[in-house]
Amino acid sequence: MIQFDTRAGHIEQLVASRLPGHGLPRAFYHDEMLYAHEMTTLWRSGWVFAGHACQIRQAGEWFTITVDGDPLLLIRGDDGVIRGFHNLCTHRGTLLCAEDSGRSRALACPYHQWTFSQRGDLLSCHGMQDDMDKATLGLRMVHTEECAGLLFVSLAEVPPTFAPASDLMAPYARPQGFDRAKVATFVDYEVRANWKIVWENNRECYHCSVNHPEYIKSNFDIYEDGHGSERIQQRLTQALERTEAAWEHDGITLNHRQGGLAAFPDADHNIWFSANRTVMAEGFESESLDGRRVAPMMGAYRDPNVGVLRMRTLPNFWSHASCDHAVTTRLLPAGIDRTHVRVTWLVHEDAREGVDYSLDRLLPFWQLTSEQDWELCARVQKGVNSSAYRPGPLSEMREYNLDAFLRWYLRQLI
Amino acid sequence: MIQFDTRAGHIEQLVASRLPGHGLPRAFYHDEMLYAHEMTTLWRSGWVFAGHACQIRQAGEWFTITVDGDPLLLIRGDDGVIRGFHNLCTHRGTLLCAEDSGRSRALACPYHQWTFSQRGDLLSCHGMQDDMDKATLGLRMVHTEECAGLLFVSLAEVPPTFAPASDLMAPYARPQGFDRAKVATFVDYEVRANWKIVWENNRECYHCSVNHPEYIKSNFDIYEDGHGSERIQQRLTQALERTEAAWEHDGITLNHRQGGLAAFPDADHNIWFSANRTVMAEGFESESLDGRRVAPMMGAYRDPNVGVLRMRTLPNFWSHASCDHAVTTRLLPAGIDRTHVRVTWLVHEDAREGVDYSLDRLLPFWQLTSEQDWELCARVQKGVNSSAYRPGPLSEMREYNLDAFLRWYLRQLI
Amino acid sequence: MIQFDTRAGHIEQLVASRLPGHGLPRAFYHDEMLYAHEMTTLWRSGWVFAGHACQIRQAGEWFTITVDGDPLLLIRGDDGVIRGFHNLCTHRGTLLCAEDSGRSRALACPYHQWTFSQRGDLLSCHGMQDDMDKATLGLRMVHTEECAGLLFVSLAEVPPTFAPASDLMAPYARPQGFDRAKVATFVDYEVRANWKIVWENNRECYHCSVNHPEYIKSNFDIYEDGHGSERIQQRLTQALERTEAAWEHDGITLNHRQGGLAAFPDADHNIWFSANRTVMAEGFESESLDGRRVAPMMGAYRDPNVGVLRMRTLPNFWSHASCDHAVTTRLLPAGIDRTHVRVTWLVHEDAREGVDYSLDRLLPFWQLTSEQDWELCARVQKGVNSSAYRPGPLSEMREYNLDAFLRWYLRQLI
Repeated sequence: MIQFDTRAGHIEQLVASRLPGHGLPRAFYHDEMLYAHEMTTLWRSGWVFAGHACQIRQAGEWFTITVDGDPLLLIRGDDGVIRGFHNLCTHRGTLLCAEDSGRSRALACPYHQWTFSQRGDLLSCHGMQDDMDKATLGLRMVHTEECAGLLFVSLAEVPPTFAPASDLMAPYARPQGFDRAKVATFVDYEVRANWKIVWENNRECYHCSVNHPEYIKSNFDIYEDGHGSERIQQRLTQALERTEAAWEHDGITLNHRQGGLAAFPDADHNIWFSANRTVMAEGFESESLDGRRVAPMMGAYRDPNVGVLRMRTLPNFWSHASCDHAVTTRLLPAGIDRTHVRVTWLVHEDAREGVDYSLDRLLPFWQLTSEQDWELCARVQKGVNSSAYRPGPLSEMREYNLDAFLRWYLRQLI
Repeated sequence: MIQFDTRAGHIEQLVASRLPGHGLPRAFYHDEMLYAHEMTTLWRSGWVFAGHACQIRQAGEWFTITVDGDPLLLIRGDDGVIRGFHNLCTHRGTLLCAEDSGRSRALACPYHQWTFSQRGDLLSCHGMQDDMDKATLGLRMVHTEECAGLLFVSLAEVPPTFAPASDLMAPYARPQGFDRAKVATFVDYEVRANWKIVWENNRECYHCSVNHPEYIKSNFDIYEDGHGSERIQQRLTQALERTEAAWEHDGITLNHRQGGLAAFPDADHNIWFSANRTVMAEGFESESLDGRRVAPMMGAYRDPNVGVLRMRTLPNFWSHASCDHAVTTRLLPAGIDRTHVRVTWLVHEDAREGVDYSLDRLLPFWQLTSEQDWELCARVQKGVNSSAYRPGPLSEMREYNLDAFLRWYLRQLI
Repeated sequence: MIQFDTRAGHIEQLVASRLPGHGLPRAFYHDEMLYAHEMTTLWRSGWVFAGHACQIRQAGEWFTITVDGDPLLLIRGDDGVIRGFHNLCTHRGTLLCAEDSGRSRALACPYHQWTFSQRGDLLSCHGMQDDMDKATLGLRMVHTEECAGLLFVSLAEVPPTFAPASDLMAPYARPQGFDRAKVATFVDYEVRANWKIVWENNRECYHCSVNHPEYIKSNFDIYEDGHGSERIQQRLTQALERTEAAWEHDGITLNHRQGGLAAFPDADHNIWFSANRTVMAEGFESESLDGRRVAPMMGAYRDPNVGVLRMRTLPNFWSHASCDHAVTTRLLPAGIDRTHVRVTWLVHEDAREGVDYSLDRLLPFWQLTSEQDWELCARVQKGVNSSAYRPGPLSEMREYNLDAFLRWYLRQLI
């Protein structure tokens, strides 16, 4: 099949077609060649959030994840190390682990019982010729990084260094105790929108006032610099004062003192990770419907006034964590107009469901907010499907982070 | 991406491959490039029936329709004028109206509350920079025409003139009172056949004798010129005499006095619209199962003996209207082998369901006839999918209109 | 549309990319061009098992089958001859017979009542012009062969000779009495795997020990040459002695005296058909869960000790037949990653359900074994979907037939 080397040219043309300060042209939500290019240059080149170290606390525990059609497996070895592998038998390619998670002393392929160690080595393959070199038939590894309990994988041959992300995020994440947490539950969504539409939604709170009645009560996100009234400024100042004492007490530093969203990402310096703490509104100790705590305190926290820890990594992760629980969101593209999203709720590892917390009180805040967003995203996808769609101007006051995301994204493509 | 200018050549070859007097070769029901070409040169260039003016009688009332993937909106303004728009917010492309129909003082996008007037002007967009030129951010218009209560849209930049169609059809449609009607109900179908197969079915009554036992009782469609027996000729003559008195009385003229179908379309003169009245068989005052009226008289009619008013416009509309109700059929292609069809039943605007009419008696005649056809169409699609399919000869006596349709269609492509 | 003559080159490259003694590279389970090529050079060029002559015992009985999207019809004529046709009306291409099977004195198209004889001739087409040459408008024939009650079709213009296959298989099949059998029942499966994965599974019993606990009890398939223990050899020898008396008695010859699978196919000599008898394990008179007979004796058999008659033809048929019942498996590709499979159970034509046999006892052995395999196949497809899949080495002792299949398959492509 003749393959013209035209993808690069096509992508360059698309990138050039974006008007500064505007949304992306239609092709970015439709073009299959663009999508394939994104998978290569972005999703398969960077670091993808996979899940939580606390899901696989014991040796032999594993969970699976599929990135751009590639089934992967993360397993904790008998040496305590978490490793990532392509979830395929090296014999005939059979999917090794079909479940979402499990625990295995060794990984035996159900087809012909080839058996792999927790470190990926081929242990046995009865029935094969004796001269076969088992050393070359171990599971294919995938780069894996742990950051204070958060697990990331990279499908790149040589991934970019993870250190800057870890250096920034770990000090924020550590007091939250992600590594001493447990998954209370998770909900999987198939959002009928391109993954970028989900990020565009996430990167602005311009839409919050009307669409997120529960969410906006707890924070100052919608009050962008200079746009809050005097009364709002006063409330923000009071909240800062109230909580900074507690923060200092726990050695936690404050880095987002304004209303509105913290700036992220940074296209000019390719900053694809961030972490910051924000204060909560009066009456909120936790991101819950009534502002009251919904689980025992997590990690190193002693005072509930820790605000909200927010972290993100591109292209697929964000998290909001209160003193008592954390919520992580993981995106996985499933085609040009489909995104699989998993929202996970974590609580302290010792918290007992029904005694120390109930899902009824834990879930609604972020379940409602998430589902409100997925519906908006699907509605955008329906609109940009139109041949008549033309990207409009973005708000300089309310959509600067969306613009930053688009600029970061476009730079990844070339 | 290199794009060879080969579509034109490919289409020419396909068009040339049709044997005169025969059906279309297989590629016309399969080839994606042909389908894309049809969308451009035919569906997006001509006039597409959208719905009824009486659906949006009040200022602010709107309904939505999707043509070749483009969501559209028809809304009546406070000035009484009906306008068509692309149903997208000009900010981020969000689908503006998600429902089938509704009424709005102004059109507010649910995402960021950009608000548009009923005339499509951008009224407000709080949160945007002050120097933004709102005048350039109104909704994108779509050409719209009203013909005696029937609404048509065109996606063309410069659509062909609608006047000849209107000049012919309006005098027929006006006495029917489409503009003083109301929608009793509609049924949506997903027909598993190419849209041309649906037209091919519509353009001949060769299939009626066996497949439409209810339909054939009411009319003389199956008695093509010279093919009815003497007894049939007698019945036709009697019907003509009986009704012509009434027609004259109401100033309604007769233009199809024969048995069989009126000739349509006319490929040589590109006549894509038609209207005519036919008489009904003895005992039929309305196209109902028992021939009796199923609703109060419509429009200007005073005598039930008005026969049946039949109208069609290519590529997507036909209608049968009796003295007491009208039925319209709207086709919208949904892929090479899928057609969305809406069948709508209209009655006088003052008719009260349960009192003046019941759906039980109103629907069956055209619901049965339609569904009988959709099943046949799906069965044809299954057959022409075969690599062994070769178009056969058409009947000169019974399929002349089908042949005319194919010739008209092929001329649109080049 | 410009069509580069590059398919041949692409296929050659793919074929060359297979490492000897290993599975097939990923493209063989993904590439749409490869799939199209397979359909042309393999499925449409050879003989495809269609069904059983005993399904259409009476004149006018027919059954339908779809091969690579082409609907076909096999019908027995009033002269007792079974003929194959493309299942389309020669008028407008309408699917002629929509059911799985039926009986018709003549084949009337439901659309316009064109009527064809059981021999495919156009008998009547009322409504068409008189000068039409009906002789040219008969149903399009498909080559059909019967082999001792088994029916095969070929979509090739000039199919390869069927004689060698028939010469080999008929003497084996005849005593089984496929032509005096009846279908007890059949089960249709949509296996989510490429058709080659289904064959790869069929061509080795390396996977049987763990995956087919029921199946392995009845035979010596898993004891490949020299790999059974002495005790196994003893059991095999006893089984051979016990049954050979009976076989001689019925004039049935033995041709697979070893443990393990008989060699098939033969890539070097393009042998795509085979038949052989194997002995059953002690205690098994039939392939049933408990080894006891589940129906009256079939065909010419007088002694139940006839072992198992096994036949296969590529690309789509295999069968296991005991003294009392036969099971046939028919594959039909339905896309690069989908295979339609029909498993059919046959018993003596005089056997009465509920009296002489019950489905409860007849089905489980092969239903369980089949479904165990389909699940494994789907799991392999999921694995080879991964961009990280690399074909592994095949077992020389346990997967020689799989290797033979791959070599045979690759030769068909070029």
